[in-house]
Amino acid sequence: MLYDCLVIGGGPAGLAATVYLARQKIKFLMLTGDVGGQTLWSSDVENYLGFHLLNGQQLVEQFRAHLKDYRKDFELKEGERVERILRSREGFEAKTSLGSYWAKTILVATGTKHRELGVPGEKEFYGKGVTYCATCDAPVFRDKTVHVVGGGNSAMDAAIFLAKYAKQITILTTNPDLMGDAGLIGRCKAEHKIRILGQARTRRILGGEFVNDIVYADAHGEERTEPTQGVFIEVGVAPVSGFIDFVAKNANGEIVVDKHCATSVPGVWSAGDVTDVGQKQIAVAVGEGSKAALEIIQYLQRGGR
Amino acid sequence: MLYDCLVIGGGPAGLAATVYLARQKIKFLMLTGDVGGQTLWSSDVENYLGFHLLNGQQLVEQFRAHLKDYRKDFELKEGERVERILRSREGFEAKTSLGSYWAKTILVATGTKHRELGVPGEKEFYGKGVTYCATCDAPVFRDKTVHVVGGGNSAMDAAIFLAKYAKQITILTTNPDLMGDAGLIGRCKAEHKIRILGQARTRRILGGEFVNDIVYADAHGEERTEPTQGVFIEVGVAPVSGFIDFVAKNANGEIVVDKHCATSVPGVWSAGDVTDVGQKQIAVAVGEGSKAALEIIQYLQRGGR
Repeated sequence: MLYDCLVIGGGPAGLAATVYLARQKIKFLMLTGDVGGQTLWSSDVENYLGFHLLNGQQLVEQFRAHLKDYRKDFELKEGERVERILRSREGFEAKTSLGSYWAKTILVATGTKHRELGVPGEKEFYGKGVTYCATCDAPVFRDKTVHVVGGGNSAMDAAIFLAKYAKQITILTTNPDLMGDAGLIGRCKAEHKIRILGQARTRRILGGEFVNDIVYADAHGEERTEPTQGVFIEVGVAPVSGFIDFVAKNANGEIVVDKHCATSVPGVWSAGDVTDVGQKQIAVAVGEGSKAALEIIQYLQRGGR
Repeated sequence: MLYDCLVIGGGPAGLAATVYLARQKIKFLMLTGDVGGQTLWSSDVENYLGFHLLNGQQLVEQFRAHLKDYRKDFELKEGERVERILRSREGFEAKTSLGSYWAKTILVATGTKHRELGVPGEKEFYGKGVTYCATCDAPVFRDKTVHVVGGGNSAMDAAIFLAKYAKQITILTTNPDLMGDAGLIGRCKAEHKIRILGQARTRRILGGEFVNDIVYADAHGEERTEPTQGVFIEVGVAPVSGFIDFVAKNANGEIVVDKHCATSVPGVWSAGDVTDVGQKQIAVAVGEGSKAALEIIQYLQRGGR
């Protein structure tokens, strides 16, 4: 079985591509961990033109409703992640934990995932007080004392969101101060529940059944221990591009694309947050995914190149 | 008065940019003929992710509802078209029929307009049987005999839409046959109301108070006259880029952009159908407009470059 296209990833870029590919009766398969991607974990989405006053989950419901019109026109394997893409005689082979799929073209739209901090205790207490998603887990920490590790926009977002629930939030950042959006910095500094510790390098996370303490090195390299009930790690995101090694990437591992979403390899396109297009936004991912799908349709109509 | 940015054009690209610029409190002015652009004249919009089962006017209503949240954050001059953009000491000057506006940056998002056929009678009978918009005017031609000039996707779209109303539709195309989307060609050929005349070069349009006849040259160069009550001209679109002459354009007059929507001139960005990005789609325009706005915000934060 040879597909015309494999769409890898089911966030806004992959879903937008799906609409175009399905309407043109392209024989394709979507392989994705989930439908919605990072959008599922967004609190409020206010900047995707035409939608306002809704959260990420509600927007994904709208996306799903839209795709329902085309559900018979493509295959979807949800929960099946791609481990490796290889070149094959007819085009490309995608290996998952369950098997292999072959296609003439590939659209990589796998987005990003959170970066890990890489300290002892992080893996051990994951789900036991350590989390990477304030939007998902904040309500569990009502009236508790928590720490946010990171000092950029996503750390500030997390802290502001947590302030609705937690008793006290401490932001630990290695920089002297918060860095990023001026509005967010202002809100963090104005919120009395939020405490900011600069030049604080997180060393390890301690606990028993659950997290109990966080240990950091202060400006003088002195280790300090603070009791905590939750550790929210917000040290940025990394592109999910490790499963494909034959396309050009930048130093961050983002897939390099041109303005038509073409990669360095004919037959492979990429769209959305996994690419080196700097603006990681739902609207941009939708635009890029739509563009890539139309380029793929034209490529297939020409019989490849 | 020096604006941070002038957004020229109020279609999906300009509107998407508006959301981002307004949220970041950028001091900007939108100059546009109308809010909605070509989307206003689309019949069904089915491929902008998250929306389905609605027409162009309804989608523009959603866009307007979204912008209402930010209406106090920017200026809008509707109906005021830009005639010329010049470089000025602080950046750029936009001249309209009513005055001049100055800004540090420019976003050109003016889209496309219909191409004219350039035959005698076309201008004279415009609005008197000659039209460029089947979606707008088809209902007026109920039970009438009409001609569509053009043989591509937009001509076929027009003919199929007209078939709901008109008695008979003749497509006149200079090519031997229809060219474009296979599905559209099939639908045109299956519709008994639609008649296709290939190798037919429209020469002129005749009439009295209204259109009466259309004259074309057949395959042998022989002139033939047919009675008609409506002439729908669908010979493609042209980018609206004539008002800016100092940025690089391609042979079609489209503004050349890189993948960040930057033009050849620092301080000028362009997004949507007016650019040389091939895919003229609402979703793509929204993505490009969002991207351009974020680039402009960063440029201004850096103090220009």
